[in-house]
Amino acid sequence: MVPSERRHAVNNDQRQRLDPYVDQYATRAKTMQASEIRALFAVAARPEVVSLAGGMPYITALPLDAVGELAGQLVTDRGSIALQYGSGQGDPGLRERICEVMALEGIRAHPDEVVVTVGSQQALDLITRIFIDPGDVVLAEAPSYVGALGTFGSYQASVVHVPMDDDGLIPEALEETITRLAAAGRRIKFLYSVPTFHNPAAVTLAAGRRARILDICRRSDLLLIEDNPYGLLGFDGEPQRALRADSAEGVVYLGTFSKTVAPGLRVGWALAPHGIRDKLVLAAESAVLCHSSLAQLMVREYLASQPWQQQVKLFCELYAERRDAMLDALRSSMQPGCRWTRPGGGFYVWLRLPGGLDAKAMLPRAISARVAYVPGTGFYADGSGREYLRLSYCYPEPARIREGVRRLAGVVEAEMELRATFGTWPADGSA
Amino acid sequence: MVPSERRHAVNNDQRQRLDPYVDQYATRAKTMQASEIRALFAVAARPEVVSLAGGMPYITALPLDAVGELAGQLVTDRGSIALQYGSGQGDPGLRERICEVMALEGIRAHPDEVVVTVGSQQALDLITRIFIDPGDVVLAEAPSYVGALGTFGSYQASVVHVPMDDDGLIPEALEETITRLAAAGRRIKFLYSVPTFHNPAAVTLAAGRRARILDICRRSDLLLIEDNPYGLLGFDGEPQRALRADSAEGVVYLGTFSKTVAPGLRVGWALAPHGIRDKLVLAAESAVLCHSSLAQLMVREYLASQPWQQQVKLFCELYAERRDAMLDALRSSMQPGCRWTRPGGGFYVWLRLPGGLDAKAMLPRAISARVAYVPGTGFYADGSGREYLRLSYCYPEPARIREGVRRLAGVVEAEMELRATFGTWPADGSA
Repeated sequence: MVPSERRHAVNNDQRQRLDPYVDQYATRAKTMQASEIRALFAVAARPEVVSLAGGMPYITALPLDAVGELAGQLVTDRGSIALQYGSGQGDPGLRERICEVMALEGIRAHPDEVVVTVGSQQALDLITRIFIDPGDVVLAEAPSYVGALGTFGSYQASVVHVPMDDDGLIPEALEETITRLAAAGRRIKFLYSVPTFHNPAAVTLAAGRRARILDICRRSDLLLIEDNPYGLLGFDGEPQRALRADSAEGVVYLGTFSKTVAPGLRVGWALAPHGIRDKLVLAAESAVLCHSSLAQLMVREYLASQPWQQQVKLFCELYAERRDAMLDALRSSMQPGCRWTRPGGGFYVWLRLPGGLDAKAMLPRAISARVAYVPGTGFYADGSGREYLRLSYCYPEPARIREGVRRLAGVVEAEMELRATFGTWPADGSA
Repeated sequence: MVPSERRHAVNNDQRQRLDPYVDQYATRAKTMQASEIRALFAVAARPEVVSLAGGMPYITALPLDAVGELAGQLVTDRGSIALQYGSGQGDPGLRERICEVMALEGIRAHPDEVVVTVGSQQALDLITRIFIDPGDVVLAEAPSYVGALGTFGSYQASVVHVPMDDDGLIPEALEETITRLAAAGRRIKFLYSVPTFHNPAAVTLAAGRRARILDICRRSDLLLIEDNPYGLLGFDGEPQRALRADSAEGVVYLGTFSKTVAPGLRVGWALAPHGIRDKLVLAAESAVLCHSSLAQLMVREYLASQPWQQQVKLFCELYAERRDAMLDALRSSMQPGCRWTRPGGGFYVWLRLPGGLDAKAMLPRAISARVAYVPGTGFYADGSGREYLRLSYCYPEPARIREGVRRLAGVVEAEMELRATFGTWPADGSA
């Protein structure tokens, strides 16, 4: 609605004066606030800063000539399809390829069960859209993927965290949480889990726990959303068997080509039981009509014509080398009292600062020291996690990673000295 | 939630048995139903059927060689950017180009005010997401764009139609509707309008009415969403001045390259006052993280390196020829009593059947006669519009258009004969 009177009204709320529409937004939009650390990340993008913050895959390692040729040919030879509208569910040929990719994790699926999405972020958005009424509960690991928590929050879900340990989600804790919420009359809509190479916690749900988690979900009539962007990016041995491989009716599986091919195409997918699949297609059409035909055909042709599994293996070797660089550097330079995970795949190390240090309060000082990370608080819906931070090793080269960790160690050391001198920081991080 | 007991429960609702999750969906998802005519359109896609139903641009007329070369070079030379994640607001260089495009319609805007979206459908989704609480009112022309009505419905908006005539939205009717709703205590969030080359009604808001509509919105504190996919596709003279050109604070303008470049890239945008722009960016990040970098750079480079305005002119000539073919065929073969619009641009003719005929009930018979159209009911939120149908001339070649109209005239004639013999059809179209 338009300003006129309202703009000139006496009002002490600064946002009101800045945005004449402030009273008009939907309830869900009121929780949409720019992250406090967004401005910091603008600074962190400067080349002199070693960013251990982002989750950008190292796509320079892709065969760009071959992908370029493929893109050019698609448009030149099949432009009347590649540049035209497509179906809301996604290209059928691509959906066949997606089933082949999932077969590597033990999943048997039919292309009809697949919906192509604008990255797996859109799959998260659509699944939340079709299931969540305001106040409905979503269970999620503690910590959990920041992008998922943002989406759940934007639909006014109430996120309840379930603890993990080094073997991933703790079955007893899941069971206890379900029982407690049921007793309180809460309506749980689904369990959201990143079981393999977790973002940010870098742990993997142990093989022995998988059947147990599925059994708890089955007995509780609880839908499980298995988000698996990193499943094929393991550093040792064969891919983990997906949870979906053992529960076709109880699991919606989310996948993406952002990490195995390229994020700039925005091709992800959801594999869902048919009733849910129908709703997802309708929701996708309402959200974007259809995905880019060109992007879908590029992935389809890339999978069909390029040695993509060898390329993924090459990515894994590259990321394993970077993981090693980060772990070595942490071991040799980080303060005693810091604890961190040793990822078997994926992009991240999850680090716990010694008691009393606050990763969010420390971030401006880290950026001044030319190193960036993501503070842990973003990965918790309940505001906890101040003692944690996420380090990513996917994008910088090993030497940069070592330098970044060395800088970070210096920042942590300075913080500990300050703390030893002046005590803990105020809880609001304003120190 | 998972089936077990529920699946075997005695239950007469067939959907319940088919989809064990039926009780779990959000309220908003309950209204998401596949259109009744969807199955018919699968049949209508057969080559022997002349489809006057779809709104697919005739992209075969694009310089596919040049676009292919451009796509290939982007990936080969700049793949590390074109295939990487981008910003939630969209590529800054593309946003500059978008401002140049809008300048053709008299709009002065800054790239900071632009948010790139996955087609303008996503812009519709995001604007609805940030403004609509269930039960809020959206005003829309009668008829209105089916994709917008679907999105408004999916957020549980209550759509109230405002009548049009040959000069577009009727200012007095808008004013009366606002007054009536205000008196009833209803909360109107915005007016959604396609002022130029309307889909489906094919009329254009007269120049003399534009200031009047803006004035009514301003006085009523009513935000106007100006959806303008066809603005540059006029057949005579210069582009219409956009409503946004005369109200930077009261209008959100939605644009798209789907009709002027290619829909398969899914590049649209919203131009919005800064407070709304901030919310749109946050909502876009929550929905898809970011748009495809490659698709955005392709549009940017296409606009920068190709004679795109001449290409649009070529499209206009091509569509004008098809419009003429359709109007000629309608004039020479359609039954007396049929009425239709004479579009000055865009893709559609809006046809009114003689009293008593029902376009939805007639559709299966039309498809049997190998011609398809879109029944009018989809363009009304209140179930009216049975006497209307939308014909599109954008995709089939002129000879096919003439043949399609000839077949349609035969169907209408047969319907009128049946009607003269047996009276009107039942209102539910089950005849």
